Amino acid sequence: MTTASTGRHFLQIPGPTNVPDAVLRAMAAPTIDHRGPAFSDLLAELLHDIKPVFGTAGPVVIYPASGTGAWEAALVNTLSPGDRVLCFETGHFATLWQEMATRLGLVVELVPGDWRHGASPEAAAERLAADTEHRIKAVCVVHNETSTGVTSRIADIRRAIDATGHPALYLVDTISSLGSIDYRHDEWGVDVTVSGSQKGLMLPPGLSFNAISDKALAAAETARLPRSYWDWAPILRTNATGFTPYTPATNMLYGLREALRILYAEGLENVFARHARHAEATRAAVRGWGLEVLCKDEREYSGVLTAVVVPDGHDADRIRALILDRYDMSLGSGLGRLAGRVFRIGHLGHTNDLTLAGTLAGVQMGLRAAGLDVGTEGINAALDLLGQPAAPA
Amino acid sequence: MTTASTGRHFLQIPGPTNVPDAVLRAMAAPTIDHRGPAFSDLLAELLHDIKPVFGTAGPVVIYPASGTGAWEAALVNTLSPGDRVLCFETGHFATLWQEMATRLGLVVELVPGDWRHGASPEAAAERLAADTEHRIKAVCVVHNETSTGVTSRIADIRRAIDATGHPALYLVDTISSLGSIDYRHDEWGVDVTVSGSQKGLMLPPGLSFNAISDKALAAAETARLPRSYWDWAPILRTNATGFTPYTPATNMLYGLREALRILYAEGLENVFARHARHAEATRAAVRGWGLEVLCKDEREYSGVLTAVVVPDGHDADRIRALILDRYDMSLGSGLGRLAGRVFRIGHLGHTNDLTLAGTLAGVQMGLRAAGLDVGTEGINAALDLLGQPAAPA
Amino acid sequence: MTTASTGRHFLQIPGPTNVPDAVLRAMAAPTIDHRGPAFSDLLAELLHDIKPVFGTAGPVVIYPASGTGAWEAALVNTLSPGDRVLCFETGHFATLWQEMATRLGLVVELVPGDWRHGASPEAAAERLAADTEHRIKAVCVVHNETSTGVTSRIADIRRAIDATGHPALYLVDTISSLGSIDYRHDEWGVDVTVSGSQKGLMLPPGLSFNAISDKALAAAETARLPRSYWDWAPILRTNATGFTPYTPATNMLYGLREALRILYAEGLENVFARHARHAEATRAAVRGWGLEVLCKDEREYSGVLTAVVVPDGHDADRIRALILDRYDMSLGSGLGRLAGRVFRIGHLGHTNDLTLAGTLAGVQMGLRAAGLDVGTEGINAALDLLGQPAAPA
Amino acid sequence: MTTASTGRHFLQIPGPTNVPDAVLRAMAAPTIDHRGPAFSDLLAELLHDIKPVFGTAGPVVIYPASGTGAWEAALVNTLSPGDRVLCFETGHFATLWQEMATRLGLVVELVPGDWRHGASPEAAAERLAADTEHRIKAVCVVHNETSTGVTSRIADIRRAIDATGHPALYLVDTISSLGSIDYRHDEWGVDVTVSGSQKGLMLPPGLSFNAISDKALAAAETARLPRSYWDWAPILRTNATGFTPYTPATNMLYGLREALRILYAEGLENVFARHARHAEATRAAVRGWGLEVLCKDEREYSGVLTAVVVPDGHDADRIRALILDRYDMSLGSGLGRLAGRVFRIGHLGHTNDLTLAGTLAGVQMGLRAAGLDVGTEGINAALDLLGQPAAPA
Repeated sequence: MTTASTGRHFLQIPGPTNVPDAVLRAMAAPTIDHRGPAFSDLLAELLHDIKPVFGTAGPVVIYPASGTGAWEAALVNTLSPGDRVLCFETGHFATLWQEMATRLGLVVELVPGDWRHGASPEAAAERLAADTEHRIKAVCVVHNETSTGVTSRIADIRRAIDATGHPALYLVDTISSLGSIDYRHDEWGVDVTVSGSQKGLMLPPGLSFNAISDKALAAAETARLPRSYWDWAPILRTNATGFTPYTPATNMLYGLREALRILYAEGLENVFARHARHAEATRAAVRGWGLEVLCKDEREYSGVLTAVVVPDGHDADRIRALILDRYDMSLGSGLGRLAGRVFRIGHLGHTNDLTLAGTLAGVQMGLRAAGLDVGTEGINAALDLLGQPAAPA
Repeated sequence: MTTASTGRHFLQIPGPTNVPDAVLRAMAAPTIDHRGPAFSDLLAELLHDIKPVFGTAGPVVIYPASGTGAWEAALVNTLSPGDRVLCFETGHFATLWQEMATRLGLVVELVPGDWRHGASPEAAAERLAADTEHRIKAVCVVHNETSTGVTSRIADIRRAIDATGHPALYLVDTISSLGSIDYRHDEWGVDVTVSGSQKGLMLPPGLSFNAISDKALAAAETARLPRSYWDWAPILRTNATGFTPYTPATNMLYGLREALRILYAEGLENVFARHARHAEATRAAVRGWGLEVLCKDEREYSGVLTAVVVPDGHDADRIRALILDRYDMSLGSGLGRLAGRVFRIGHLGHTNDLTLAGTLAGVQMGLRAAGLDVGTEGINAALDLLGQPAAPA
Repeated sequence: MTTASTGRHFLQIPGPTNVPDAVLRAMAAPTIDHRGPAFSDLLAELLHDIKPVFGTAGPVVIYPASGTGAWEAALVNTLSPGDRVLCFETGHFATLWQEMATRLGLVVELVPGDWRHGASPEAAAERLAADTEHRIKAVCVVHNETSTGVTSRIADIRRAIDATGHPALYLVDTISSLGSIDYRHDEWGVDVTVSGSQKGLMLPPGLSFNAISDKALAAAETARLPRSYWDWAPILRTNATGFTPYTPATNMLYGLREALRILYAEGLENVFARHARHAEATRAAVRGWGLEVLCKDEREYSGVLTAVVVPDGHDADRIRALILDRYDMSLGSGLGRLAGRVFRIGHLGHTNDLTLAGTLAGVQMGLRAAGLDVGTEGINAALDLLGQPAAPA
Repeated sequence: MTTASTGRHFLQIPGPTNVPDAVLRAMAAPTIDHRGPAFSDLLAELLHDIKPVFGTAGPVVIYPASGTGAWEAALVNTLSPGDRVLCFETGHFATLWQEMATRLGLVVELVPGDWRHGASPEAAAERLAADTEHRIKAVCVVHNETSTGVTSRIADIRRAIDATGHPALYLVDTISSLGSIDYRHDEWGVDVTVSGSQKGLMLPPGLSFNAISDKALAAAETARLPRSYWDWAPILRTNATGFTPYTPATNMLYGLREALRILYAEGLENVFARHARHAEATRAAVRGWGLEVLCKDEREYSGVLTAVVVPDGHDADRIRALILDRYDMSLGSGLGRLAGRVFRIGHLGHTNDLTLAGTLAGVQMGLRAAGLDVGTEGINAALDLLGQPAAPA
């Protein structure tokens, strides 16, 4: 007998995250006519209220689609066949995004990486400076690499781009950072911010987003990759009248309204501080067990997840399976080249100190049950930190 | 004072339809790890159980997207830039689909229409017979035109295509017919069936589908329109292992499981008979009011909605607004060239005789309140029909 | 095949009524600690906000119990063994209440009735005037007899009592009238108002209420029927501190908060007008079918239900069963001596014109299917009335 | 800033417990006609399926009421004014029950206690043996004292009663033990088992229960305490036909169906073992902190809650308030004479190892934050135990 499924499942993957009960209940309201006045009011409210979480005063487009769709949208709205994009090999999702770019007919210039660091501002500067003919049309960066727990320094990269005077667009994936880690579309000069619903926004998967700068809007006018579903123009045109060019995911929008209400009630500053604190407590536990955090540069520690390196001779997936079976907790697997070598602890979204404590207790017990000699210091190292009152925002 | 919003809203548009309470509750379950074993079981079950509703033994792809996305998927997976497609001007949605085709770089050959008839098998045969060089790569037909309430005869068109010996693919949009009107992907030789969640499948919007023939799968291997999000290949490959290439709309899938359970519990034959009966009762009411059904050919009457022509001198949208305000009922508007000239009564999905009776009562009262001289025969003409026991299936 | 269960069930009994979706969702929130501050806030809010619906500025006690429990509470808190109470034989529920009184050790003086009239103010005056020794300690009246659709004139009876100068307490059952028919505990000088959650308050069954006058509170100090669960004193004492003497039905209280919000958003005056209008439309239909309304006195027509007399030779229960089977609608049965002779149409709570129209259409079809020669005038007689805009409140 | 309310509240009081999501969703289904066939089927199913959890083949009565009501029901159905009952001062709830008995007109013979032990079989034997005239009509015992975390040995007390040959009825309160601690109404010769919905049955409060022996049924025939709402006879009579004598709490019954399904899916044996294991881990933590468990006799340790004695000089309520504020966790307060001296940790119902670990982590942090010198051994003492796989049932 295990205790599996006798209580609430611990969903500690780095997304989808635990959807607040109130959001699930909001989503259970009857679907309404998406061409009627009630919908129009809802959409107008959301398009306004979504802006602060992106840190933008500009338009945000909401897709009934996964985050992967919003990746595609960012590319097809701004680029033309054969355009060159600068990408960084920061992990599995950055790799998928650049593979998508290639598949859509773009030419990817890839800055290689070790999956333990973020995108390098220095490398960005170097590549752009070398591109004197301005063949690079866009720089694509994943803000928080969900596969590695490394957060790239978006503002620094912006400064690096600016320093070169290069006109490339700046496209940033915030799928796993938005609503969890400080992010500022306007202030940091991002041209398209890509995001999704199922992480810091505390919704189920099924919505994704593009926040769009004026420069990106201008680029869209000449971009020639074929596009229809993802095309910003008809969306922005119909949104302005309170509607959408095709049927929206109405019930997800109900959830979004509630989720934004919850986020703003806590206050974005408090949300970010809470995530940073939980990440720090998690790293304290990892060190207490004598294990290594995958992320190498402390400036790039992720507030939303921590990838833990499993010592040689152990299989991270076997540990995860044991923890799932015995403690009813889902942890994230190692993806791509990290398969079997790391597991990932999600500590984002709708969560709190005691859920994190339970999570880390489960990891500690699971590691020990799997035969790793991690001792029992980890949990108390985390509790030492959680035991201190959070600083006022 | 109106009675608006004091009871349950009458959502009598031709989709989104009334989502059964049980489906909404199913969707409110906590989101699970889409990379874990519980998800894998769910997906396998759904991919199996979805087949009968399409009438196929082949693969069905489920997109986290609106039906419009599944239109795009059907095109980009099977066609190459510059390919010619044969389309029929049956109404607003057929028009949007062919506009999408053009936008994606295809060449549309359009059979004009009066928006009161379905796609003509004879015209299909004629065009294909004339295309001796086989430049037409696909024939695109909307099964049930949601904007007109006209149902094209998909099997007849198949026979017409076959009679010419033309090799074109056959792409059919069943967004508003699937699960409401008899449909047989395999038997009727359809190559790609496009559908969505928010009509006969009784779900909120947010999922869409492609059912795919072997011939379409083969076409996908050489099709050259750029594709990534919509690409069947990675979906089919990962689905085979119980997973998806990108994050699925998990909670919508919970709803789909429940919706399929409800559909099969009633029995598809019964579902179709119920829709046909409600459509017949609705037309009886329309005739009782002395008004005209938009659909001209009784072989093409729609089981899912009835578009009613408003007499000259009256504005259909004003009538709809009055009915919404006074009776808290949403009806469908005239779309495109039918704007202001028709309103549409949806009678599909999760509904029953008394809901239809309330609907028709509301239309009768609304028409009279708007000053139309429709008398009071309509409602009883419908009740005469509903008063007879439904035939056993 | 019938259409049963393919859409939303028509629950047209005079309670439990259709619970609004928003109330059901509110009730699905996690249960909280009933000894903590969040509960205390909730209770204080409810105890305040419940008052207007009773028309009282005094205390209202909320029981985790059915309305039958609140009947018992009214008796045991105010009376002593052997006390005499004046009751009226207005129908099934009045009969049950006086049987309860007898069972608890009280002596019932019963004013006989024909189940087609309310409690007679004249009879009340006569009995009290004759009781010169003031042996009658309480007058018990059911405001709206749920079994007959007859509404007693509570204010008139108060005036009749006052005219005699008799000191008896005045206990009124508003289980099926509260929140549907105008009611004024304070203004009408009622001492204990008994009510329940599952009718006009639009909640599931499980809560019941006593609104209590100062005179009743004083009576409670000397009343000697044994009491514990129902005892007002510990409830009022603990409520004053934000708590309850035993575990409250927390999730029902969540629902109550939402239901009160909905009621007050519509406005009690509008709520009462809506009920009266629906009752009038229902009676118009009944007359259109050539049938008889059970209630004999138009001053006593009920706003919440209409009991319809079935002609000799027909069995009301057979008609109800046919309607349930064929049209998925629940109607109320004849109770007690009315069994088989009437059926009852509920038109209260969370409902609207089109739901009523569907209901009456179903009744018309059902009566005809059962072989009654009722014609088809009924439905249009109702629609004539519903077709007129409701008067502004 | 605290982390309060950013995630799921930790409801670690000894009831109401965490209601499983699936139960809350089940309760959100539309209320049905309680006089129709669907209700009748539901009730029959529940009355059958509820029996194993009581360990009885006899009738179980379900009240729309709190557990306190079921206490009253047990007394008024079996006893007459002036009857003597033997009670044990095991804690706050035993005290309330005997106060109720007195208030209802019974004479209580009280075995005093120190609130740290269960009811003594020896004392029971002694009192009954001394009662040679059989004036004691009933023995009342609380199985699990929710205020102290002490579980009385019901079977042992039965044996003690039997040894004296005394004919008294045996009434047992299992409000906080049923569905969590092994219990056997029939085998242990209990005459009336009292229980409630909001603890081991994992429902919100609002239902309560009497399981009834043949001997108790016989006693009810002559018992003369006035009773109506609580009267078994009309309930048993109407239940036999599928109905209830007054309106049932329909939506709570939906929840009960789901809760029983969940309990039986785990298996009662597994449920009991899980509770015992969590209690043991909790006591290990308490000892690790150098604190004292209130319960003195290890044979009487409770599987559902642990009351922890706070050292002199500390206020348990202040600690609880700090923990609620800082860690969003509700713990149980000291009740009655234990106010301020203990806090209670609930570990019952729908819960699992990691929730318990989070709970104990929160207690440890809270104790330290409150200035208690408890060290950090507690959490790991619990994890040592939880780290061992549960034994197979």
